[in-house]
Amino acid sequence: MSSAEYGLLAPGRADSAVEAATGDAAYVRALLDAEAALTRAQATVGLAPPTAAEAVTAAAADTGRHDPRDLVVRARSGGNPVIPLVAALTTAVAGRDAGAAAYVHRGATSQDILDTATMLVCSRALEAVLGDLDETAAALGRLAAEHRDTPMAGRTLTQHAVPVTFGLKAAGWRTLVLDARDRIAAVRAALPAQLGGAAGTLAAFHAFAEADGSRPDPGAGADLGLRLLAAYAVETGLAGPALPWHTLRTPVADLAGALAHTAGALGKIAADVLALSRTETAELAEGSGGGSSAMPHKSNPVRATLIAAAARQVPALAGVLYGSLAAEDERPAGAWHAEWQPLRDALRLVGGAVRDAAELTAGLRVRPDRMRANLAATGGGIVAERLAAVLGAPLGRDTAQRLLTDVARRAAEDGTGLAEELDRALRTRHPAVADAFPAARLRELTDPAAYTGSAGALVDRALRRPGTHRAAPTAQENA
Amino acid sequence: MSSAEYGLLAPGRADSAVEAATGDAAYVRALLDAEAALTRAQATVGLAPPTAAEAVTAAAADTGRHDPRDLVVRARSGGNPVIPLVAALTTAVAGRDAGAAAYVHRGATSQDILDTATMLVCSRALEAVLGDLDETAAALGRLAAEHRDTPMAGRTLTQHAVPVTFGLKAAGWRTLVLDARDRIAAVRAALPAQLGGAAGTLAAFHAFAEADGSRPDPGAGADLGLRLLAAYAVETGLAGPALPWHTLRTPVADLAGALAHTAGALGKIAADVLALSRTETAELAEGSGGGSSAMPHKSNPVRATLIAAAARQVPALAGVLYGSLAAEDERPAGAWHAEWQPLRDALRLVGGAVRDAAELTAGLRVRPDRMRANLAATGGGIVAERLAAVLGAPLGRDTAQRLLTDVARRAAEDGTGLAEELDRALRTRHPAVADAFPAARLRELTDPAAYTGSAGALVDRALRRPGTHRAAPTAQENA
Amino acid sequence: MSSAEYGLLAPGRADSAVEAATGDAAYVRALLDAEAALTRAQATVGLAPPTAAEAVTAAAADTGRHDPRDLVVRARSGGNPVIPLVAALTTAVAGRDAGAAAYVHRGATSQDILDTATMLVCSRALEAVLGDLDETAAALGRLAAEHRDTPMAGRTLTQHAVPVTFGLKAAGWRTLVLDARDRIAAVRAALPAQLGGAAGTLAAFHAFAEADGSRPDPGAGADLGLRLLAAYAVETGLAGPALPWHTLRTPVADLAGALAHTAGALGKIAADVLALSRTETAELAEGSGGGSSAMPHKSNPVRATLIAAAARQVPALAGVLYGSLAAEDERPAGAWHAEWQPLRDALRLVGGAVRDAAELTAGLRVRPDRMRANLAATGGGIVAERLAAVLGAPLGRDTAQRLLTDVARRAAEDGTGLAEELDRALRTRHPAVADAFPAARLRELTDPAAYTGSAGALVDRALRRPGTHRAAPTAQENA
Amino acid sequence: MSSAEYGLLAPGRADSAVEAATGDAAYVRALLDAEAALTRAQATVGLAPPTAAEAVTAAAADTGRHDPRDLVVRARSGGNPVIPLVAALTTAVAGRDAGAAAYVHRGATSQDILDTATMLVCSRALEAVLGDLDETAAALGRLAAEHRDTPMAGRTLTQHAVPVTFGLKAAGWRTLVLDARDRIAAVRAALPAQLGGAAGTLAAFHAFAEADGSRPDPGAGADLGLRLLAAYAVETGLAGPALPWHTLRTPVADLAGALAHTAGALGKIAADVLALSRTETAELAEGSGGGSSAMPHKSNPVRATLIAAAARQVPALAGVLYGSLAAEDERPAGAWHAEWQPLRDALRLVGGAVRDAAELTAGLRVRPDRMRANLAATGGGIVAERLAAVLGAPLGRDTAQRLLTDVARRAAEDGTGLAEELDRALRTRHPAVADAFPAARLRELTDPAAYTGSAGALVDRALRRPGTHRAAPTAQENA
Repeated sequence: MSSAEYGLLAPGRADSAVEAATGDAAYVRALLDAEAALTRAQATVGLAPPTAAEAVTAAAADTGRHDPRDLVVRARSGGNPVIPLVAALTTAVAGRDAGAAAYVHRGATSQDILDTATMLVCSRALEAVLGDLDETAAALGRLAAEHRDTPMAGRTLTQHAVPVTFGLKAAGWRTLVLDARDRIAAVRAALPAQLGGAAGTLAAFHAFAEADGSRPDPGAGADLGLRLLAAYAVETGLAGPALPWHTLRTPVADLAGALAHTAGALGKIAADVLALSRTETAELAEGSGGGSSAMPHKSNPVRATLIAAAARQVPALAGVLYGSLAAEDERPAGAWHAEWQPLRDALRLVGGAVRDAAELTAGLRVRPDRMRANLAATGGGIVAERLAAVLGAPLGRDTAQRLLTDVARRAAEDGTGLAEELDRALRTRHPAVADAFPAARLRELTDPAAYTGSAGALVDRALRRPGTHRAAPTAQENA
Repeated sequence: MSSAEYGLLAPGRADSAVEAATGDAAYVRALLDAEAALTRAQATVGLAPPTAAEAVTAAAADTGRHDPRDLVVRARSGGNPVIPLVAALTTAVAGRDAGAAAYVHRGATSQDILDTATMLVCSRALEAVLGDLDETAAALGRLAAEHRDTPMAGRTLTQHAVPVTFGLKAAGWRTLVLDARDRIAAVRAALPAQLGGAAGTLAAFHAFAEADGSRPDPGAGADLGLRLLAAYAVETGLAGPALPWHTLRTPVADLAGALAHTAGALGKIAADVLALSRTETAELAEGSGGGSSAMPHKSNPVRATLIAAAARQVPALAGVLYGSLAAEDERPAGAWHAEWQPLRDALRLVGGAVRDAAELTAGLRVRPDRMRANLAATGGGIVAERLAAVLGAPLGRDTAQRLLTDVARRAAEDGTGLAEELDRALRTRHPAVADAFPAARLRELTDPAAYTGSAGALVDRALRRPGTHRAAPTAQENA
Repeated sequence: MSSAEYGLLAPGRADSAVEAATGDAAYVRALLDAEAALTRAQATVGLAPPTAAEAVTAAAADTGRHDPRDLVVRARSGGNPVIPLVAALTTAVAGRDAGAAAYVHRGATSQDILDTATMLVCSRALEAVLGDLDETAAALGRLAAEHRDTPMAGRTLTQHAVPVTFGLKAAGWRTLVLDARDRIAAVRAALPAQLGGAAGTLAAFHAFAEADGSRPDPGAGADLGLRLLAAYAVETGLAGPALPWHTLRTPVADLAGALAHTAGALGKIAADVLALSRTETAELAEGSGGGSSAMPHKSNPVRATLIAAAARQVPALAGVLYGSLAAEDERPAGAWHAEWQPLRDALRLVGGAVRDAAELTAGLRVRPDRMRANLAATGGGIVAERLAAVLGAPLGRDTAQRLLTDVARRAAEDGTGLAEELDRALRTRHPAVADAFPAARLRELTDPAAYTGSAGALVDRALRRPGTHRAAPTAQENA
Repeated sequence: MSSAEYGLLAPGRADSAVEAATGDAAYVRALLDAEAALTRAQATVGLAPPTAAEAVTAAAADTGRHDPRDLVVRARSGGNPVIPLVAALTTAVAGRDAGAAAYVHRGATSQDILDTATMLVCSRALEAVLGDLDETAAALGRLAAEHRDTPMAGRTLTQHAVPVTFGLKAAGWRTLVLDARDRIAAVRAALPAQLGGAAGTLAAFHAFAEADGSRPDPGAGADLGLRLLAAYAVETGLAGPALPWHTLRTPVADLAGALAHTAGALGKIAADVLALSRTETAELAEGSGGGSSAMPHKSNPVRATLIAAAARQVPALAGVLYGSLAAEDERPAGAWHAEWQPLRDALRLVGGAVRDAAELTAGLRVRPDRMRANLAATGGGIVAERLAAVLGAPLGRDTAQRLLTDVARRAAEDGTGLAEELDRALRTRHPAVADAFPAARLRELTDPAAYTGSAGALVDRALRRPGTHRAAPTAQENA
């Protein structure tokens, strides 16, 4: 007997809203919802009596009867949990209405129910994800606005390049978060119900109509299967698929892509927080880093670490899901089964990462003093690009370059300021040019904060992108 | 010195339109296009004289000067091919217009050029992909219409389940191909130009404006960097990004997702063709299978094999690209460099797979006779679901089940037909019911072709989805 | 609060020995074992009083005190479960021996304990894996011996090629299983204990020795840290590492490789079983396939399906583990945390797959009659290679080829036998050669069972490889 | 027609020894070697005349006749390059010895030749890899010895923890490199030849023996196929496989694992170099970093960047290779084809990375002054663990902790030294204890260089592991 698991090795996702929304209990709930919706949909098109729909809906509401642990063991022989659940639900329905029992799961295949339940679980879990993405974007919007003009070193290939602003960095993070939000919201709005019967033709429903002598609405025109599919979508609150998608797995692939993007977008934030938290840099710190009693100076960026760990895992899981597109026949032997856990794990890792991102961005400690101090680390090198351009005009590119190299070395050796040293060099070596560069101008030219280019304008434009547009509502929410 | 490669180990993608569109020569072309567009954009906003734009554009048109092999070797020290290319281009420009040389690559960083060139390459390569997807969808549309009512066995977990039609299968393939088409077209339409300078602030352009005393249009209102970004987008024909995206890699992630989806969608077709081509099944055959002189009966499904091989590789490459979202700083040390080859390889694998899919679907040999013969493989088991439903009404589910099991065994042993055997059994054991099932009715009930449910209606609906809607044009095509 | 999970979406691994050996409870057990071993090791080298070692060992034996659910929640702030566990264990020890409490976890870092516990869990889980691999290999050895000369079609690129034997196929499967076994056993024997303290220097142990005035055995020569490391290896029963391996992750990478290999090896068996179980082929069937009440003819290869699903997932998880080798600093922010769940999931998927493989191979139903029938599917094509060689000698390659193509077509059209048709053609067209091929010779030449080449000799040789050599014992088992 | 590629997007691997050893030309060479070896092996066992072996060997030596570009195009229809190569080779042989042409490729299948050629290519490429691993290990050994006692900050989760030595870090890197070396050498020594004929039974060779009337050595006892397999191994210089391994892909999986491990091992070094090169840290610098004319202060760690990029890609490629273990039938339709490029790319990425690692480690600039300076960054926090232990003995843990927190804050505020501040605090607050801690003792206790624990002893032990043990020679080298 498998023992209970609670996420001991997954602190990044444990105890989150998504963890609960994707748990075994939540899946049992969704499986029962899918069964109840199926009988109700059949009632809608005349394939089942309304009383059967009521009985199944009532019995399915009673989640407590279905112990996941027990279902797990009984799922072994058939290879999926729907088979034992249907047996148990049938018994429960029979206890309420003997005649209704025959209508449980009638005409469906296990995959109809499991796929539909998975979409319901995804819809519920992604709602929590969207909420946390919104919160994260809002926090980042505040940081970007507040630090629109806070200068810091821009770093490329680990080295200081030219100045940027923390506002630009935060606006970039926010842009990624909104990109993720858009992708998640679009995927969520399109999650389809699944119904095809044994091989995707919905033939069993026709057979039952035939058997019951109840070919409903023969003159209605629309095909019975198509009408049932539409009714099922309504009852589940999911989108109505063009075709049963047992082996047309675009919905799962789209989930894979949106989740991998989201994990990576959050991973970018984490990568930056980790780099800027390093002891020597210390420009950022998590609000409440994990501490150590033996090393009281330590303030570990735990949230960023857990997000980074998630970002390392989700692409691999997405790869498994994309790989499962190549599924043979009307239901494949392996490709479908290989989706279940990776999709759930990807949801959970993303759900945990965005919960952590919301906490991280809400509490992030920004240290403009450290940013300013670090801007001096290259002894003016960080504004060399500007000086080379501005001095290159009168002196020529090569002469300007040589002068700057000299001056920078001397400033470093003597511990003097770059502006002062430059002033002296110009007066000595290029007196004709020196007058064009009075002290105030040199101070401006050597001030990293005065060399941030379009950073402010870019932040302003990026912040005009709306942050909290509610997700496109699902069919369920529309209803 | 690296030797020339031609794709010896990649017959799936060798010699395809996408292979050429993504080759070293095509990248050099795109890099030069990006450089020329940059100088032109600077001329537009007053940062460079029009003559410089002309000189750079003219020099950049001369691809022949730039030997990829030579660039490769010289790319080693700086880690990317832009650095040596700029040096060579500068020399070429100087030969035309000495004053223009200073405007080559001015203010840009290598990543501006390489990212922009990559987007240009993607745009060109994806155009070919879209063309082949259109062709494939058209061929599948024809197959689905032609075989709307051609019955064949539906198979789940390798076993016959209930009948389907080949039309439904082909319509499903087409749906996946159109899903892929939509995703590729959407991504292609949004491919953005890249321009940010050393750390994404566009500061160098401000410095050059300052140095030239040419702060252009001071009253124009819009920030110089933003105007330049817009002009660059126009000149490249790519979309204008909200922010420089050196480490905001949504465009690359979206490419990864669309390519992985497409590979998987084609992989589904290949998986089915391979399963249905197996010697014992033989319901499908490639138009021109690879043969063997020693084994003349062999007709290998080579196209499907190569597509299947691509579908196994692309998800892993997409995983690398998604992983590169988590890129530290303003330009990362590794994450960006890890994108180049996987993106190109994914394009090529998809480009080859869709070329093969177009060939495969255009020439696919469908054998309704074999489909019909295989429908008999379970001695009527394939219609058991229907018989159980229809006979279950008068006889009760359990009785009907027992009867059917018996009858099926007897039909198999005696080599008689299922309808005949069922007729006899009903008359003997259930005479009261037998009259409701005359011979013609029993023949219909046991005919797999008469048990395809909503297959026809589903095909009709699926085929109403438009097949060849041209891709949303890129900004370039709009211009 | 996270709810309990039991593997609802993982029937392939649920309820297996490895599932239990890797559960949250098993990890808590191993973490406590690691803590107890640490205090005992310190006692061995004089860093702790023997009474402390006894108290910690006794308290750690009481697993029941530590609720995984509670640990999970409290692991959030520090990012790992060791921190709250140590707090709880310290309280428990203090309840037994107030003076001993200070020796709990003394000098260690969380990673020392979690890595060591992971190795203990791996050791225990892999023992079960090895047992099932042995069983599987034994079953396959029996099948290979029994069917040494059972002919069946060899298939390449889905098409019949030349005959093989089922014995050769089973011997190949067994070879892969033994390859997996060797790799798992080698990795298991080398699983190392982890101990390095905060940054891998073991410095805290020196500090405590200094503080206690107990620099033990100053003249003993060997470094205190090295002696402690050795003692810790002894107490845990794991191998002694050359260096602390907080960021030298060869042990984890080796586990990744061995698990991915094993999953793939079993996946090969599953792929063959699935192909050969297809309704039209039906040469193999699982002992107890999953059934369907509506479709009584179905016998789903459920075990093979679940194995195939595992084989699709483990390579991706292994990729995450290999990726975590690139871990910065003395302990990384993300790479290590990204190992925990993928390693556990890989163990579980492999543990489930090998459990299923043992069941599958023990109960596999082999149908030589179907194999024999399918050998006729190409109307003699399957022996064309031999006929071309043998007739090519007297007739010339091209003439022989033409003759065979003709004869095969005629045999198919007339429904006659290939030998008979060949006899007629030779006598008519090549009378000079015909005498060399009397009827009996032609029957032999056209008999697939007589064209199995070295299959028997290869089976004999492969079966001489010993099957059940016990795993190299771990250090613990040696002790 | 595909255009020539030279690695424009792969500066990490371009122009390396492995790149050349794995190029199209190298593969053509190896394919021809495999064909020649096959005919020679047949001559050895009496299946071909010695003159045929000579003719094929001579013709195969003439690589120039075979244009990869042409082979690529002609490989399309059959899906692999062996088919057109055999045609061309046959023509070439016929030109030398008409009778020998029939012996080209006789009895073999394309996979026999392509797999064997791949193993030859791997053997040659891995020899270069081993050479560079040896060089890298040697450089690291020197660094570890030289800096055995050079103190630097140990960092965990981005924060300073306790001191380590650079020697310990370099010794750890070397350990990983030697681990990689051992794995590569073991895999290389076991690379097997491939020979099985159409479906792995070697039956065609029996047929040709039969046709030739040349059943050689009928009384020799050993099976003809087994003798041929052994002779082929001798002629190729590869190991003799127990069974043909067309779908028993342990050799490829083992390559995947060894290459992924190696990439990750080098990736660890790169990750550390990148972290320690950051402008604020600056403890390490590459010997010749990539520069920037506009930003003269930049010295990009290009080699580490390219290694890091490789480490991000190889695990995904290894995943594809592990996935291909699950290959159906006697030759699979896709799984085998999906190995070719990923294996080659993995070899190349590793070959480039180890070339870069050798350069990087040979030229690495280590800056003990920066290490020492950074050790002060936490104002003594880095030795807090030691102080807490040593002062905890007389004062009690909690009191000592409070005292240290106080003292550290005051030292930071006043800019005084930690030892001085601690001296004052002890004398004021704990005069009874103060005498036990005279100034010299406090200076030692607060000196990071005096708190490196077992670092020196660990370095000494790690360096005793032999560095340059030549790889176990291959069968070829033994011959």
